[in-house]
Amino acid sequence: MSSTVKINKEPRITLVGAGPGDPELITMKGANALKSADVILYDALVDEGILSYGNPQAIRIYVGKRSGEHSFSQEKINKLMVDYALNYGHVVRLKGGDPFVFGRGYEELDYAAGYSIPVQVIPGLSSSISVPGLQQIPVTHRGLSESFWVVTGTTASGHISSDLYEAARTKATVVVLMGLGKLKEIVRLFQNEGKSKLPVAAIQSGSTKEEKLAVGIVDTIEELVEEKGIKAPALLVFGEVVALHPSFQPIKAFYQVLKAEI
Amino acid sequence: MSSTVKINKEPRITLVGAGPGDPELITMKGANALKSADVILYDALVDEGILSYGNPQAIRIYVGKRSGEHSFSQEKINKLMVDYALNYGHVVRLKGGDPFVFGRGYEELDYAAGYSIPVQVIPGLSSSISVPGLQQIPVTHRGLSESFWVVTGTTASGHISSDLYEAARTKATVVVLMGLGKLKEIVRLFQNEGKSKLPVAAIQSGSTKEEKLAVGIVDTIEELVEEKGIKAPALLVFGEVVALHPSFQPIKAFYQVLKAEI
Repeated sequence: MSSTVKINKEPRITLVGAGPGDPELITMKGANALKSADVILYDALVDEGILSYGNPQAIRIYVGKRSGEHSFSQEKINKLMVDYALNYGHVVRLKGGDPFVFGRGYEELDYAAGYSIPVQVIPGLSSSISVPGLQQIPVTHRGLSESFWVVTGTTASGHISSDLYEAARTKATVVVLMGLGKLKEIVRLFQNEGKSKLPVAAIQSGSTKEEKLAVGIVDTIEELVEEKGIKAPALLVFGEVVALHPSFQPIKAFYQVLKAEI
Repeated sequence: MSSTVKINKEPRITLVGAGPGDPELITMKGANALKSADVILYDALVDEGILSYGNPQAIRIYVGKRSGEHSFSQEKINKLMVDYALNYGHVVRLKGGDPFVFGRGYEELDYAAGYSIPVQVIPGLSSSISVPGLQQIPVTHRGLSESFWVVTGTTASGHISSDLYEAARTKATVVVLMGLGKLKEIVRLFQNEGKSKLPVAAIQSGSTKEEKLAVGIVDTIEELVEEKGIKAPALLVFGEVVALHPSFQPIKAFYQVLKAEI
């Protein structure tokens, strides 16, 4: 990167959560931070429409880890962020969802602190709550769920989190982020807890034009995901609250008929 | 209420999450909904600064359950909401945090559906993630927490949720909303699981001028909450991630000295 354009601005970094995708789902505060940014570093999960809130003079750098041509390691992103702050002033690090929900936001904050660069955090809507919510599936509801548990399907080691084994045993609504690639194992895990009939939703690209939804039960969700062509990024919701979704009604009737026959 | 001002507008309802308190922490979409509102029904937890985004002609109704003079039951709020929609058009139902995180939002949505009034949901920042986040306490962090579990301290029956007993046993970051009044019992519950030394934060009125923070461990949090005068609305965060907060550093050193002496 060029450091020849160096200007006399205090370096600072703002970690901003962009929300689930729809550019209107960023906070007012997040959009205001973008207006005063000298540099914007943004992720693969961030809709480029959000960049239009930014100062048009701001340097925009795509650091998405899915990019075909570049491979931005976390270490490289940390370095870029600090380097740009030192050279250009206010860096907005724009991340999908909320920076602290499996977003590695704290690692970036910690790295910047090592250079004594002040960091402000502006939370974003985590897809874990907002994406089911936009489908009118509440993560909590009186009589159905007194809590919700958000787990990653893909840990640093590439395995299913051991927390998910425990979550499958509880009455909590369980939201699994980045779990689609491990759907078979996750389904098995709920089946092993005797929850074959527990309602499940899989939602791809919530809040965007690419949004897709499958609603079923533990035993049918793999087939439904296949049928509807649901791909990552997607999340899974396991819990009785999913039965509140209108598309669950025909399934419910079917299971009642089945039960009556037995 | 007067229904004499009846105008020819299609009734519709938008459930909007206002976020944790700071008016800038509402989404752009939520603020835009307020602009087009004919009526705004808002809760005790909503900062009145947020109302300034609203259409100045909009009727504003405070339906906070803490109001001294009025007692708005959920049933009464549901009725008001529908009544205003039928008589005035677009009702924005503005709720603290996210409408579906212990917000009884689904009950309102369901009630409106009974009158065939279309309802849109615009999620808000849940305090469960955003309030710790603003204090730079991440609910997840590699090596410390692969999941977080959000539980209410006060269930419909007035008891601690049985989910909290289970949550105290796990490695998840546990966030307890509306739990301050039951702090003694909640502390006991973690102590019974051998977690006397687990880091804990209590945060009152996150994101507002009234914000207060106490950071300690399970064994000390009651005393700290007393000392700092922390009152409801407040949330509790139990988990190793709390140790990342700068004010935990002196405590950490103290416990290391203590450990060395034993």
